[in-house]
Amino acid sequence: MHIGKYEFNEFMEVVRSFHGSPAPGIIIGGIMVDMARDALPPETIFDAVVETPKCLPDAVQLLTPCTVGNGWLKIVNLGRYALTLYDKYTGEGIRVFIDPRKLANWDEIQGWILKLKPKKDQDFDRLISQIKTAGREFLTARPIQVNLEQLTRKRMSDINVCPICNEPYPSDDGAACRGCHGDSPYVVEGGDLT
Amino acid sequence: MHIGKYEFNEFMEVVRSFHGSPAPGIIIGGIMVDMARDALPPETIFDAVVETPKCLPDAVQLLTPCTVGNGWLKIVNLGRYALTLYDKYTGEGIRVFIDPRKLANWDEIQGWILKLKPKKDQDFDRLISQIKTAGREFLTARPIQVNLEQLTRKRMSDINVCPICNEPYPSDDGAACRGCHGDSPYVVEGGDLT
Repeated sequence: MHIGKYEFNEFMEVVRSFHGSPAPGIIIGGIMVDMARDALPPETIFDAVVETPKCLPDAVQLLTPCTVGNGWLKIVNLGRYALTLYDKYTGEGIRVFIDPRKLANWDEIQGWILKLKPKKDQDFDRLISQIKTAGREFLTARPIQVNLEQLTRKRMSDINVCPICNEPYPSDDGAACRGCHGDSPYVVEGGDLT
Repeated sequence: MHIGKYEFNEFMEVVRSFHGSPAPGIIIGGIMVDMARDALPPETIFDAVVETPKCLPDAVQLLTPCTVGNGWLKIVNLGRYALTLYDKYTGEGIRVFIDPRKLANWDEIQGWILKLKPKKDQDFDRLISQIKTAGREFLTARPIQVNLEQLTRKRMSDINVCPICNEPYPSDDGAACRGCHGDSPYVVEGGDLT
């Protein structure tokens, strides 16, 4: 079984190297990417949506040209283990999700996605083995029309220098940057090191 | 000049391969990652914050163990071209930002970050050359204390199957999943392909 251009075990290593561990969610994500891609017309120039920030973004980033930093991968947190690849010009795409109706034969995958047992009681090798055997059998793909306006990254406004922190920021954010408007996750900022 | 374990031009290729183009923002981001890392005590186990979703996430994902999918990279959109690496247990970290006070000698970098001219009038080769020559000279690093509670990913709740779409979702999201609560970016969803 292949995932993208990789042989299954080779992809496990690619995942380990990028993600820090060969997370089952990314292996499943890789199978989902392939399934969506195969159902799109060849040569489609696509963007991607993942419906959870957990694991799935890394599968898309490893197997497609879409990354968070280039904006072609969009994370819309709906809490579902699903992804969509869609034509970036028309919004027509394919959504793939884990289908509970198809999990009866795959108890370890079912236990993983429905969190039926604590992580420490999961049998990792059995889970990976079931994923490898099942392939796409527990997944469903559907054609979908994406709302392009909702997903298109806004063109960035002019840049100002914030009068409070003296850093560049988009003028659309107002008279000061968002960090100085109270959205910052920092408690204390020290003096310049250099 | 090196960026992470890469020679400068080699990193340009790594960026092109992952991000689709050798974006100047990611090259700068790579220099920022190195600067933050050097100011942290060696062996620090760190998480990362980027203050914009544009380009910077990819620099962090290419050069550190932190990815969007594993949750060690957090995107807090403050609109500033800045990143922080911080000790994941204490929240003590180093924030690096582009410092407008230091841009006088680097007009092409200044033009890029302040968007002083349209992209088509930017001189890409001159910009990359200035970045390579400047190194860290237009950046400032500061020690910072992160609010860990604000940045720590919540432990996921139990999983239910949504009574509307029949897909698994976190029970904390309520009686139905967020997609079925109206947060979905899809206009039309077709029938099962498989």
